[in-house]
Order: sequence, then structure tokens, then C-alpha cells
Amino acid sequence: MAAKRIAAFGEVMMRLQTPGYELLAQAGSLAYSFSGTGVNVMSALSRFGHPASLVTRLPDNPLGDAAMANLRKLGVATDLLQRGGRYIGMYFLENGFGSRASRVTYTNRQESSFNTAPAEAYNYEELAKAIDVLHLCGIALAMNDGVRLHMRKLAEAVKQHGGLIVFDCNYRPALWGEGGYSAAKPHYERMLQLADTVMMNERDAVHILGMSTSAAVRGEQLKELIPAVASQYGITVIAGTHRTVNADHTHSLRGFLYKEQKFSFSPERTFRVYDRIGAGDAYTSGIIHGELQGFAPEQTVGFAAAAAVLAHTTAGDTPMSSERDISRAMEDDAADIER
Amino acid sequence: MAAKRIAAFGEVMMRLQTPGYELLAQAGSLAYSFSGTGVNVMSALSRFGHPASLVTRLPDNPLGDAAMANLRKLGVATDLLQRGGRYIGMYFLENGFGSRASRVTYTNRQESSFNTAPAEAYNYEELAKAIDVLHLCGIALAMNDGVRLHMRKLAEAVKQHGGLIVFDCNYRPALWGEGGYSAAKPHYERMLQLADTVMMNERDAVHILGMSTSAAVRGEQLKELIPAVASQYGITVIAGTHRTVNADHTHSLRGFLYKEQKFSFSPERTFRVYDRIGAGDAYTSGIIHGELQGFAPEQTVGFAAAAAVLAHTTAGDTPMSSERDISRAMEDDAADIER
Amino acid sequence: MAAKRIAAFGEVMMRLQTPGYELLAQAGSLAYSFSGTGVNVMSALSRFGHPASLVTRLPDNPLGDAAMANLRKLGVATDLLQRGGRYIGMYFLENGFGSRASRVTYTNRQESSFNTAPAEAYNYEELAKAIDVLHLCGIALAMNDGVRLHMRKLAEAVKQHGGLIVFDCNYRPALWGEGGYSAAKPHYERMLQLADTVMMNERDAVHILGMSTSAAVRGEQLKELIPAVASQYGITVIAGTHRTVNADHTHSLRGFLYKEQKFSFSPERTFRVYDRIGAGDAYTSGIIHGELQGFAPEQTVGFAAAAAVLAHTTAGDTPMSSERDISRAMEDDAADIER
Amino acid sequence: MAAKRIAAFGEVMMRLQTPGYELLAQAGSLAYSFSGTGVNVMSALSRFGHPASLVTRLPDNPLGDAAMANLRKLGVATDLLQRGGRYIGMYFLENGFGSRASRVTYTNRQESSFNTAPAEAYNYEELAKAIDVLHLCGIALAMNDGVRLHMRKLAEAVKQHGGLIVFDCNYRPALWGEGGYSAAKPHYERMLQLADTVMMNERDAVHILGMSTSAAVRGEQLKELIPAVASQYGITVIAGTHRTVNADHTHSLRGFLYKEQKFSFSPERTFRVYDRIGAGDAYTSGIIHGELQGFAPEQTVGFAAAAAVLAHTTAGDTPMSSERDISRAMEDDAADIER
Amino acid sequence: MAAKRIAAFGEVMMRLQTPGYELLAQAGSLAYSFSGTGVNVMSALSRFGHPASLVTRLPDNPLGDAAMANLRKLGVATDLLQRGGRYIGMYFLENGFGSRASRVTYTNRQESSFNTAPAEAYNYEELAKAIDVLHLCGIALAMNDGVRLHMRKLAEAVKQHGGLIVFDCNYRPALWGEGGYSAAKPHYERMLQLADTVMMNERDAVHILGMSTSAAVRGEQLKELIPAVASQYGITVIAGTHRTVNADHTHSLRGFLYKEQKFSFSPERTFRVYDRIGAGDAYTSGIIHGELQGFAPEQTVGFAAAAAVLAHTTAGDTPMSSERDISRAMEDDAADIER
Amino acid sequence: MAAKRIAAFGEVMMRLQTPGYELLAQAGSLAYSFSGTGVNVMSALSRFGHPASLVTRLPDNPLGDAAMANLRKLGVATDLLQRGGRYIGMYFLENGFGSRASRVTYTNRQESSFNTAPAEAYNYEELAKAIDVLHLCGIALAMNDGVRLHMRKLAEAVKQHGGLIVFDCNYRPALWGEGGYSAAKPHYERMLQLADTVMMNERDAVHILGMSTSAAVRGEQLKELIPAVASQYGITVIAGTHRTVNADHTHSLRGFLYKEQKFSFSPERTFRVYDRIGAGDAYTSGIIHGELQGFAPEQTVGFAAAAAVLAHTTAGDTPMSSERDISRAMEDDAADIER
Repeated sequence: MAAKRIAAFGEVMMRLQTPGYELLAQAGSLAYSFSGTGVNVMSALSRFGHPASLVTRLPDNPLGDAAMANLRKLGVATDLLQRGGRYIGMYFLENGFGSRASRVTYTNRQESSFNTAPAEAYNYEELAKAIDVLHLCGIALAMNDGVRLHMRKLAEAVKQHGGLIVFDCNYRPALWGEGGYSAAKPHYERMLQLADTVMMNERDAVHILGMSTSAAVRGEQLKELIPAVASQYGITVIAGTHRTVNADHTHSLRGFLYKEQKFSFSPERTFRVYDRIGAGDAYTSGIIHGELQGFAPEQTVGFAAAAAVLAHTTAGDTPMSSERDISRAMEDDAADIER
Repeated sequence: MAAKRIAAFGEVMMRLQTPGYELLAQAGSLAYSFSGTGVNVMSALSRFGHPASLVTRLPDNPLGDAAMANLRKLGVATDLLQRGGRYIGMYFLENGFGSRASRVTYTNRQESSFNTAPAEAYNYEELAKAIDVLHLCGIALAMNDGVRLHMRKLAEAVKQHGGLIVFDCNYRPALWGEGGYSAAKPHYERMLQLADTVMMNERDAVHILGMSTSAAVRGEQLKELIPAVASQYGITVIAGTHRTVNADHTHSLRGFLYKEQKFSFSPERTFRVYDRIGAGDAYTSGIIHGELQGFAPEQTVGFAAAAAVLAHTTAGDTPMSSERDISRAMEDDAADIER
Repeated sequence: MAAKRIAAFGEVMMRLQTPGYELLAQAGSLAYSFSGTGVNVMSALSRFGHPASLVTRLPDNPLGDAAMANLRKLGVATDLLQRGGRYIGMYFLENGFGSRASRVTYTNRQESSFNTAPAEAYNYEELAKAIDVLHLCGIALAMNDGVRLHMRKLAEAVKQHGGLIVFDCNYRPALWGEGGYSAAKPHYERMLQLADTVMMNERDAVHILGMSTSAAVRGEQLKELIPAVASQYGITVIAGTHRTVNADHTHSLRGFLYKEQKFSFSPERTFRVYDRIGAGDAYTSGIIHGELQGFAPEQTVGFAAAAAVLAHTTAGDTPMSSERDISRAMEDDAADIER
Repeated sequence: MAAKRIAAFGEVMMRLQTPGYELLAQAGSLAYSFSGTGVNVMSALSRFGHPASLVTRLPDNPLGDAAMANLRKLGVATDLLQRGGRYIGMYFLENGFGSRASRVTYTNRQESSFNTAPAEAYNYEELAKAIDVLHLCGIALAMNDGVRLHMRKLAEAVKQHGGLIVFDCNYRPALWGEGGYSAAKPHYERMLQLADTVMMNERDAVHILGMSTSAAVRGEQLKELIPAVASQYGITVIAGTHRTVNADHTHSLRGFLYKEQKFSFSPERTFRVYDRIGAGDAYTSGIIHGELQGFAPEQTVGFAAAAAVLAHTTAGDTPMSSERDISRAMEDDAADIER
Repeated sequence: MAAKRIAAFGEVMMRLQTPGYELLAQAGSLAYSFSGTGVNVMSALSRFGHPASLVTRLPDNPLGDAAMANLRKLGVATDLLQRGGRYIGMYFLENGFGSRASRVTYTNRQESSFNTAPAEAYNYEELAKAIDVLHLCGIALAMNDGVRLHMRKLAEAVKQHGGLIVFDCNYRPALWGEGGYSAAKPHYERMLQLADTVMMNERDAVHILGMSTSAAVRGEQLKELIPAVASQYGITVIAGTHRTVNADHTHSLRGFLYKEQKFSFSPERTFRVYDRIGAGDAYTSGIIHGELQGFAPEQTVGFAAAAAVLAHTTAGDTPMSSERDISRAMEDDAADIER
Repeated sequence: MAAKRIAAFGEVMMRLQTPGYELLAQAGSLAYSFSGTGVNVMSALSRFGHPASLVTRLPDNPLGDAAMANLRKLGVATDLLQRGGRYIGMYFLENGFGSRASRVTYTNRQESSFNTAPAEAYNYEELAKAIDVLHLCGIALAMNDGVRLHMRKLAEAVKQHGGLIVFDCNYRPALWGEGGYSAAKPHYERMLQLADTVMMNERDAVHILGMSTSAAVRGEQLKELIPAVASQYGITVIAGTHRTVNADHTHSLRGFLYKEQKFSFSPERTFRVYDRIGAGDAYTSGIIHGELQGFAPEQTVGFAAAAAVLAHTTAGDTPMSSERDISRAMEDDAADIER
């Protein structure tokens, strides 16, 4: 059987980061890279051996060329990608330390090539023929009506051609603004109806979907709400994580996977964090990989959680671990040098 | 007599430059600084001992904070500056080498805090009381109607309070687009009518103002057209440069100054170029300084040309030379180490 | 009511730091910045919205120019500053890691422009008219008789014009040498007599002022000695911190403020340290800010302690946090990314 | 008609370069990149819009992963590439300046994955089906019998499937050692017999093929010997350059193309050199592109020469210019900034 | 009495490390340095005041020159060193973070100048006259028969001239491969028979020497096996460490020294790790130094353990601490800044 | 015959240089290295195979340790060197570009360990026994009476033990100040009386020694004055250079050597300059090497001039070329890559 062709629809962001722990008002240089939820998930899946492509739109200028080169470097195929428009979305990152939080400052991404793609920018039919699994996420959903229409049309086309839809809820309060939850709800519901696999947890059910629960503890809420979501929207797999930020600035993470009326959980892992951004995308990539490879649910959720832990220890937004790295991390937590 | 208080109205741009001679598709880091025609001229004048301030608008976020800190570092006072809006204009610079030209890529500056300043953003009256000399330039003029209105109202208020207006024509074809000259003409004419000192040369007269000349040689055209412009728009001082890019990639530069029906010229200087951007602003700052200090015209134009030459040898857009540095460069061209 | 004009009298030091955790015998480059107790406190207060100026002396050469530019970048006004003399004080910093302590190596600061300022260098009367609050510290006091005379004359002039004096005891054993405490005592007493606000703790009372206590625990000693100091020297506010270096290399800090016969304490905060130097100056700036704003004592001491904690997490000697950053840190200790 | 699928057979080298003009005994860091004649030519052709692939062998370790990522970044497809063996060839570059020559130091490339590829490493038949144009070069030919056998078998297979063979003579004296010309001759002759397009000049004819000429001037020798080579080995196109290193350290370059009994020449261009290595590969890529696009011979040779000139101005071994960049450079030699 | 002349026989490795926590597939530059067990031990001993020399072989090219310069920088004398052969061994280091282990990738060191030294490369007699203490290690022993012969001949010559032999077991599984223990055993036994001081612990006794023990706990095994090894091979001093990698990624280390039928132990120290590689060599250098200085065994083992702890906090493979640094670290664990 | 043991008496300076062409007021980091006339000459001679040592005094602190490590790295032996005092001399270098001159700013070197060495710091007798050739220079002579006394006593002791004295006039106007020539003259005369080999040219004869000449051209002045100096002070060899700074910022250099009543001249070489500082020391080292090796005078002067040219193309003050590099440069001026 041929390898499943995976694609993500999403924006490429240029990340510009000050050195070490300097602020923008102190530093004089920035390291740059290109990422985005779709980029991160596709790069990870490519590293696991899947053909992984990005459906997006980039300007035809030196910044677009740099983005193209770096997507390819990350293993993301660019054959489904459009060039056009004039700008690329950017964000500036100032690394926090201990009790000082990291700080992210965005440029105007509404003007980006992706967010201004005209109605005819993507050929949904042709794309659908080239895609077996399509990944979409809540960040793109927050952009504007044009992007939302592209998302819906593309998802419908892929579904019609027998493809699978993965949707990551990924709700960002700053993007939706005041009163965002109710504005977001109808758009989210449309996506959930199309999706086969969904990344979310009980908080999304409460806040976005407006569901309520009498349970007081997170774990109980999860077990009450997730099955309800799955049944209401006809979703095959729902997966997500519970994260705790500990007093000593370590994080703890536990993954869950709900499928065929059953929850599976990864062990809770506690770890030091080097680069937090994009770690959730590593988790998603682990879930998709496990599902495509036919792993048992416990193996999938354990693999995804280990992938997420490693992504916290790696520079940049994009996960860099191979399947072998992740398997080793599932076994052993405190390794000495590998020679 | 108290020192003249000088201010420029203009946008602050963030300059992001790849290291050495790398392209954006090759490099992984960027040096950043903050500049702009107004920034450059004010910084140079502050170094010459004048109180120099910038009238502009910067976002109230970490990028705006970084711009503020760097303006102060350059000696530009920020007491007349507004915080508001959300974005800062940016450009990416890839250094050329020899026959490969430098390449500049802009982000969407139309959305910048400066270019979206609302009608009430600046208190023209209060500003006019604090400004003896106001510098404006053709780049801001190319932005949009809002900016143009601010320029005109501020210039009128300063003039009404007895201040001087300096206008730098600085026509950038890419900003005005196709058919730009005719679109630009009325805006330029309004500025010329308000201006006491104007930076331009015969090409601006031909292209922007639509004047014609029978002379074939640049020097002849200059001598025919500049007096006509001065008389037509009632301008006291017109100054500018003639630049030649030589086959061995050195540049040659000759400055002129037209005042009281007389042309003065600097010697033509030939020099190696390290950083081309902003060198014209050093010339402007030299003209303003000479005029304010009451230099003889030949001294002014010689000082301005030497300032421009040194600015080509200095990293970054912003001139960094002191009056002493420039005086020394006027005398001697090929110096050994100064210990 | 107009904003209080604050100034510090103190030396500007050039800090030269090896990259990462390298030693001078390993590295090949140094990051440099400009700091000093006065610089740090003024920069922090400027960030809180106060006009903050430095009274000091810098050489009229490229190092002095660099210092000027960087003071302005930090928000410190340079209008009260003198240029003259030939040298700038410097120190080299090799960052420690875990059980390896950081190491500081000084150049000969006795020859610096500040430490060789002649008797007529500063116009005390003019300065006193421009200063509402004057900050002085024990490091300058350790330099030489010339500096001490300037400190006393300036403090007296400011006091005479109705200004407030803040004195930070800041005793550095290496500067006073063997038998330093008794040599230092008379100079410290003169300062305490002039000061309205004093930064110190019970150890300073014991070691410098030679006071004795029967209490065994630090907290008891503090409560016995600080009121005695306040009453003996007529000091309105005494504030300081108790710091513990924990076995896991985190630090714990608790601030106190004594005013109107009452002690206020901040909560004890435990935190990871990124850059230790200058964190005490952040505490001082918090105390001054709280007093000037009329905060309740508990709010002042909590604000100052949070400012100090954040300063430990920030690169460089100089505090970089805004009032908003500090308020947020007072509430929440273990933050995730701010987007 | 579908795009021609181009592939190169050749080694990937890791280039490790000291910063600026430092020697290995002075510096402490190295910039690294991945190149090789095949890499360079394929990257350039990919930038011109051709599907371009590399047939090579890389170790399955982090260095091989890095090479893979960087090949993709350069636009070179890796689907025909093998993983196996243990090492990657490397060279260290110390940049010369003026009269001090650049210095290249190799590691033991004989042990590289490419140079130790076993007999069964490549499936010639499958490769031949995927390749319309195959590029080979004299550097690989100098390696060892195993590599030479792979080259011959692959060239024969491609030829049998109707593909074209491009051979770049690229004789490196250091690789063949003493008496190298006679050792090399039979291997070169075999390649020339298989090749349709050959990169060489009259010196290769004299030194490698042992041909003789009575002409004294290079130009005359060229016109005598190249037609003889073309006729003797049945070669359709022979192209190459004449380079002069001038006293002021600029270089001059003139390209030629011999085809259908006719020579075409580019104008001689004189230019400053930033990075010399790999510039010849830019010339080759221009010749192949011109031929595939059906350019007139003068256009092809002019395009190739301009591509070579630009490659001398670009960091790294690998050409980075687009077709648009090269066309612009063909028209204009001394450009100001492109905004 | 004259200072003992110490020498190590061993390979110089070039260490090439990616910046921060980047992978080779992410980074673009590498910091390089030169190390090796012999280099590290000699450098540390030179810092303690001993004349310390390296017997090795380096290529006569720019990489060899760089190695020479850096050995001298580290305080290692190069007068006993040979130039010849063509290559230098290299390894690439990607720093791990938290649960992601550091990764080391070697180039082909079998081809290095050291590992291809011909039979006549070293004049054993002359060397033996210049060496009072010779250090050898298990890494060189794993290389090949040529190196092993040099080791044996040199050790025998030094012993014959009355010198002392120190042997560090340092078994690296990757170098010996499958079934390595039995292949290694005879070579190790020969070294142990020649050695006066041996660095090892009970695991080496079990795995390499095939000894068995009924004790279950490490401490018990140590006390049973080490005396047996000492007696069987006639060794005067055996020293080594027990290391624990803790869940929070700190390490704990306890040193032991067995001499004259008595064990001495250092306190167990727990510490954060900055650079793990080469820390064992710091321990060795502490043992040798203590023995040469005639320290009491407890002092020696405490000094060696503190040296090892500090080496974990220092950048690079090579220990950088002075005797004064180490003595201070023996007393105090959690230091504030040293000014 | 045993190799001549060479030593220089002189100060070690720490050089701190901004990156690229940035000013101190722009940059944030500095590259540092350690140099000085004595360091440079000794390093070059060590590279030519001579045992070369430095007699100087360095502080016993981390800066002194760094200087020691870097001297060793440069090949300079440190066995004759003293530790003591507290400071090291420093200078800051801002690189010029084209018509902007390089700028050097010193710290207070009068307080350095070298310049404050007490009378008993050096054991002249012991040093004289270990030195066959002693190098001294005019920079040290400008320092203070203490240093001058050390110079004279050491030179006399070496001479008494049959050693040779090399003196480099190296007059720096800034160090002697106004009226410096007459202040300097007696000190220079004392040195010339002791010296066997002297580095100087006709300008030194005129300015320092107050000699006069009727010749108008430099070449004629040289031929008239140098023999007079040689005869008056009993000097065996006088050597020096004539340098021209050309309009295109290249330099031209011609070396001369006067010996046994005969002048020898090198060809005049014109070259681009990368790092000017210390190039004169390369010339000196070439003269000393030629004399010690017994080269013919024309060979010596040609070798010295080529060494000087290469030193202008090398980063840092200290010459880095081997005898082989220089010999190659004597033959060929415009080299392509060396592979």
C-alpha cells in the first residue's frame, strides 16, 4: 500500500528571536526561522517517513524565497504551495527566564500573502486529489472569512475524495479578542463536523463549545466532556494534553487519546523546558503518526507525549526528533552522552 | 542666542540586515537597527550639537520600546514622539557585492503606527512652538493622504510661528508606482511652496515638476533648472548632489548649493562604499548645519559632501561622524591609523 | 504637580563579559555595556516614568561617546554630565555556573574621569537647582577623598535647596581593603546624617557602624538595629533585603522597609538567577518609586522585591522591567508565554 | 513537453570556513555548508526551474541528516540519494586576502560514504529511467576505481535510455598527484566518448589528452584544439572559460561555446571576487540551462558568463542567482541599491 | 628536588560543537577546540604547576598548526610531539538538554596522523629520558595494533628509566564494538601489569577483566574487587568515581582512592552540569597532582572530586581550574560573585 | 651550533576590536587578542623556528592568565616572564574603511604591571644568560624612567654576555607628547649606542636625532643619513621601510637594509590592506631571521618586505606567516586558491 500523502493548510510565520535572554530593547541581532502549526506538524511527519506537504501562499520576493528554502530544509514539500501577495507574517520572540515570561510580538499578519489569498488562489479539486490526510488548525480559523472559506472548501473537497481531516482546536484568545468564544463557536463547529481526528481538551469543550460539566477536577471533566464532543460531532479520535507549570519552572505533561469509547493516557512526564513554542505540534504529529501506522492507542499516546517532551528540549518551533529518538526517550528519561 | 530646536517629521523604520554578503535564503540571523530619513538627519545634527527631535508615532509594544531606546542612543530626542497604533515599518537588506546589487525588501509599512496616525494624533500648535526648523521628506509624502495632511498642517503651523521648513525631495519610484510622477507633482509643489531649503537636483525638476531643458549635459541642466525652481517656488536654498557609480564600483560625488542666485560646488570626491543607505541624509545634515552656523556657501557644501562621503564608509543608515571627523576628512583623504 | 527630577551621582563602568560560561583564557570576544549603581537606578526610574539624570564625568573620546550613547539608550539623561579626563572604569565578568562562582576583574578605576574629577568639575549650585531627589552610594564613597568631597558638597547643596537624599550603603570589602570598616565609618556617618532614605540592613549596622546586638537570628537583629540607626541619624526610610543562596543555586529574597517606626516585609521569593549583578539596584529603584508615588509601605516593599527578582532574570546589570512587568510578576510567579 | 529531469552524480562535501580572514590557528568557530560540483550545478538548475536531483551516498548519522536538510534547502531533490557508509568528505577553507591566497585543507574523503559505495549501491537501470540529463565531473573521476565504475555504468545506462551526458573535465592536480595526467587520460577519454556536452578548455586538451598545438596565444590554441576534441570524441557542445587574475586582484572572465563547428564568445567581464569556489559550476549550469531552453549560442554563453560572475559575488560554493538576476546582470554591471 | 616531568601519550581530537542546543541539521556554525584524554590531563597538571607534555602525532597542515597553537594555549608542551601523516581525528557535538541526550558523531579517526604513526615514529628511548610520569588511556588502546605497540613500548621504556605509569581504563563500548570486552581484556591486562596508578572502578573489573562478585550493592562490589585487582596486577594506587544521574538532571559524584590496602572517599557532591565531556580527566589530574604533591589520601580524593565537579561547570572538554579554584570549591559549594 | 635564543623586552597589550567597521558607539561586542611589538616579533620568529621568549610583567589575575594562554598560543615562550602588579595595558580599535581612518583609544597603560615593575622585578644577570639576541623598542622607551632603566640594564647585561641587541626606533608622537623629540633624543642615543641592529629610516634620523640633510628626495636623504647614523653609533645593520598610502587606499612598501657600507633594497610592492597594525613588526622579524640564517642582504630585505606585505593581509597585530608562506609570496603576487 502506498504511503499516505499528508498536507497541512496553514500560514508560514517568520520567527525572529533575540539572542539568549535579551530583550528587543537590549539586543542588536535576531535569529530567524520559519514555522507555523502546519509547518511544524508536516516537518515532524516528514521526519517519520511520510510525504508531507504544505498548502499555503508565500510572496514572490526574497523573504518568500527564504521561507521556501527553509520549508524544504525542514522536509516539507512545497509542490502544493502558491506564490503571490506581498508579505509574510512575522513574530518576534524574547525568551523569558524563570519567573520572567517569554514575550511574543506580532507584525500585521492580516496583510500576509496567506491571509489575503483571493478566492481563486487554490484549486481545491486538484489539491484534494493529491492529499490523503489534511491538517487544519484553529489559528488559521481565527484569521478572516477568506481564510475560513478556503479551509472549509478544501476540507470538503478532501473529504469528498475519501481523505481524512485532522483539526487542531488551538484557540488563541489574542486572535479572537473580546467576546471571542461566541464569535468562534460556529466556525469551530463547522470544522468539528468535518473532522475525523481532533486535537482538543475539556477546556475547549467548555469555552469554545459552551458545554458545561458538574465535575470539579480536570480529569473528571475530561472524561465527561470529550465523549460528548466525539458523539455530538461524529469524531473518530480526540486527543490532547494536560499541562502543569510547576513552581520550579519545570513542566509536567500527560497525553490522552479517546477512540472507540475508550481513553488511553500516557504517563505524566516532568521535564525542563528549553523552547516551549510548537511543542503541541509535536504531540499532534505523534498522534497522526501512531494512527497512520496502526499503533495501539497506548503506544500512540505515549509516543506523542514523548515527542512533545523532546520538542520542549529542542531549539525552534519545529520538532526535530526522529522516530528512533522518540522511542529511546519513551524508555529512558535521564540520559548521559550518546557516543 | 539660544540653539535652534530642530525636528523632523518622518517614519522610523526597522532595518534588518543579513550578515556579510549572505542572502535571506542563506543566512539565519539579522542585525537590526532603527533609521529613516528624519532619524538620520536628526541624529547627525544632534552629533553636531543641535537639539534634535523626531515627530513620529511608534507602537506601545516591545518593538516600539526598542525603537525608542535606539533613537535615544542615536542622540534623537523623543519628547515630541507619540506612542500608539500597532506596527512599525521594516525593511530587510541583503548587501550586494561588486556587480551584484544590494536588495531591499519591505514589509507592509502602510499599516505602521506612523502611517495610520489618526487626524488628532499630533498637536500641531504645541509642536510648532517647540520647533524652530522642521525637516520633511518625499518618502513620507508618498505614503497616504493622512500622512500628507499631517505634513502640510505641521509645516504650516511651524511656518506661522516663524520656523524654517527644510524639504528633501527624495523621490522613490517604487513608492509612487506607475504614473507616479504626475500623481506626486501636486503634493511636491505644495511642499516646495512651504519650504525654505530644498534638497533636490535637476532630475527632480524634470521628472517630478515636469520642467524641460534644452541643455544636454547634467551640469548645464542643473544651472538652468535649479534657479528656475527657486524662483518659481520662492525657495531660499536648494542643494543636492551628482553621483557617479564608476566601473570599479567606487562612487564619485559632487555637491552643489544654490543660494542668492549663486551656485557653490564641492570638489568631486571618489571613494569606496561600505554602506550606501542614508548617505544622502548625511549630506542634508551638513547643509542644515552649515546654514545654521552661518558657514560660507563653499564651506557648507564642502562640509556636506565630506559628511556624505564618510557616511558611505560607516555601518548602518545613520551618519556617525562628528564635526571634527568631517573637518579632518575635508582636508585629508587617505589617512593611516589615528592613535 | 510636576514630576520630581531625580539624579544619581556615581561612576559609569564599562562591563566586558565573556560569552556564555567561558573564561577570559578561553574566549575571544566580549559583550560590553555600561552600568554602575547610579546608572542602574536612574534607568529603572526612567522606565517607571521619572525624569532621571546622571551626574558623572566621562572622557571625551570614543569610549566616552559609547558610554553616552548607551546611557541615553537606557533612558538616563546626560544633560548634567561632564566630559573630561581620559579614562573610563572597566570590569571584566566571567559568568559562573552552578558551584563555580562568577568572577569579576577590575581595571584601574582610580584613574577614571570620574575618580580624577578636579575640585571645580561640578557646579553644585546649578546641579542642586535641577535635582529634587539625589541618589548616592557607598561604592563612590570608597573611591578617594576627591570623590567623597564632591558627594558631600553636592548632597549638602541639594538638601539646602529642599531636595531629598537617598543613600545606598553598598559596602564592598575589596574596595576598602584590610581594616576597611573603621576607615569607612566616618564617611558613612556623614552620609547617613545627610540622607532621608537609606538602603542597608543589620549587617551594615554591625560592620560599618560598629553597633552591637544580643539577638542571634538575622530577623531579630534587624528589628533591633534598624530603628536604632534611623533614630540616631535621623533617617526617614530604611530599606533593604535578606538574601539566601540555596543549595540548588536558586536564591531567596525578602525585602523590608522601615518607616514611621514600623517594619513592612515583602513575601520571600525564591527564583533562578540569570544575571545577579545590579539586582540590588532594581530593589532601590522600587523603593524610590513607591515612595515618590505614595504607595503604601507593603506595596512599595512588594514592588521593590518583585523588581529585584525580575532583575535577576534579565541580561546585564541594568534593570529592564516596566511598572506593568513588575506588577504582573507580583501576582504570578510561573508564567507561560505571553502572546 | 514535460520538463527534463536533470541529475548529477557526485560527492557532497561539507565546507567548514573560518570567519572573515582568520586562519584556523587564530579562529575558534567555523561556518559550515554542503556543496560539491554536482550539488552546485543541480542547485543552480533548480533555481532556473528544472527538476534537479543528486545521485550520491550519505551516512545515516547527524552529519548525513544535516547534509540532506541543506541539499533540500538548496533546491536539490534527494529522492535518488542513498544513505549508508559512515563518513562525509570535508574541507576547511581559510579565506585569503589580496596577495595572500585562500587555503583549502581536506579531510580523508576516500573514506566517505560516496567514495566507499559498494558495487550494488546504485540501481543504474532505475536511475536511468528517472534521468533525462546526467552531469558528471572530473573530481569524482579522480577518486577511485569504484567511483569510476559507478560513473561509467550510470552514464551508459542513461545514454541507453536516450538521456544526455554532460561531463565537466575539472582536473584537480592535487587529486591525481605526480604523473597524474597520464594516469587520468584513459579515464577522461572514456568519459568524453560518452559525453554530449563537455566543459573544458584548450589546457585540458593539451595536458590531459596530450594534444599539441603550434599556436602561441591561448585564443589561437583554443580555436585549433577544441574542434579537434569535438570531432575526435563525437561531442556536440564544448564550453568553457578563460580566466585572468589581474594585478589588482580583480578577475576577468570570458566564456566560449563551441557547437556545430562554430565558436560563440561572451564579452570579457572584469569583476571583484568575494567567493571564488564553485563559480565554474555556475558557468556550467548556465550552459546546460541555455541548451535546454534552446537559447541561441551567444545568449547561452553570455548567460553562463554572467551566472559565473554573480557566483563570484555570492557567499558559499553554491550559485544563488535566479534567471532574472542573471538577465539583469547581463545588461548592467554597476548597479545601485534595488528597492 | 626538580619538578616531575609528566607526559601523556594520546590522540588530539578536534571538537566541533553546534551553538547552544541546536542540532547539526539546524545550525550553520561550529565552535572548535582541541582535546583528548591526554590533552585534558596534561593541561590540568600544567595549570597546577607541573611541566606537562604530550606525545602524539599531528599533520603538518593548517589543522595541525591550529592544534599545536591550541595545545600551547592550554599549557601543554609540544616539544615531544611529532608532525606527520595527513589527518586529525574529529568529533561533532550536539548539546543535549534535559531529557534529550548530547550526541557525539565521529569522523574516521583511524586515518588520523596519530592512528597511522609508523613503527619508527617515536624514539622511545629519548622520550623515556624526558618523562618521569607517563599517562596512557583505554581510548588509545582501542585504536589499533600500531597504537597499542607504541603504548607498550613507550610504557616499558619509561618504566625501565624509573618512571611511573598512570593508566586510565576508560573503556568506550562503541570503539571496541560487539564482543569488545573479551577482545580488550588481554590489552588491558598488559597495561595493568605496567601501571603504578590506575583509574577504574568495579564495573571495569567485572566487564573488562571478567571478575565476579557476590555483592549486590556498588559500594560492596567496589570494596571486594578493587583490592583484588590491585593485588593481582601489582598496582600501587587505584582511583575512580561513582556517578549518579539524578531525575532532575543534576549529577552526583563520589570519588574513591585505594592505596596501601585502604580506601579513602570524597564526600558525595551533587551539582548542575554544563559540559560533561572531559570531567573524568579532571578527576585523574587531581589524583596525579595529590600523589605527586604527597597529599594525604583523603585530601587527594577530595581535591580530585572537586576538580571533577568544577570541570562539569566549565565550557569545553579541558579542565580550566587552578589549584586555588579547586581548594575554594572544596570548602564552599554555593558561592555568590567573586569581586 | 645550537639555535640562538631570542627574547624581546616589551609590554603585552590587550587589543579590543569592534566587529567589522562598527564604532564603539554602535557595536556591542569586542574581539580581543594580546599583542605588542615584542610579542609580534617573537611570535613571528618562533614560527620561523627560533626559540623566542618574552621578558615582561603580567598581573596574576584572569586577564593575566588570558594573556599567558594567548602568548603561548602565538608560540611565545613565557618562562622568562614575571607575574605581579595589577593591570594590563589595553587599546580599543575601531576599523576604518576607505577614507575613514582607523581609530585607536588607549586605557591608562602607565598603571600596567609592565610599566610599574619595581627595580628588582627582573634578574638581569639570569636573563642575560638565557638570551642570545635581545629585541627592544621605542614604544617601551617612551613609557617612564623605570622602564627605561630596565631596558638599559638588561641590554647592558646581554651585551656583556656576548648577546646581540636589536633596537626598533618606533617613535610614537602621541606617547612623547609636545616637544617629544628633544625629550626622546638622549634615550634613543643610549639605545643606539648599545644596539647592533637598528630598525629606523631617514625620518627618525632627522626628527629624533636632529640630523640634517640637503637632499630633497626621501631616497637621497636615506642614502645620506643612514650611513652617518651607522658610523656615529657603531651599528652593524640598519633596516627599515618606505611606505606610501595611495589614492585608492592600497599601500606601497619598499624595504631597505644597510650593512657593510652597502644598501640593499626589496622590490616595491603594492597591496591591499586588511589589518595594518603590527605589519612593521613582521618586517623586523624578517630582518632578524635573515641575519640569523645568514641570508644574503637582498634575500633578507626581500623576505622581510614580503613578510610585511602578508602581515597587512592577516587578521590581528601578530604576523602569522610561515617561512614557506613568505617564500611563496616573494615569487607570486596574485594567487588563486591553494588546494
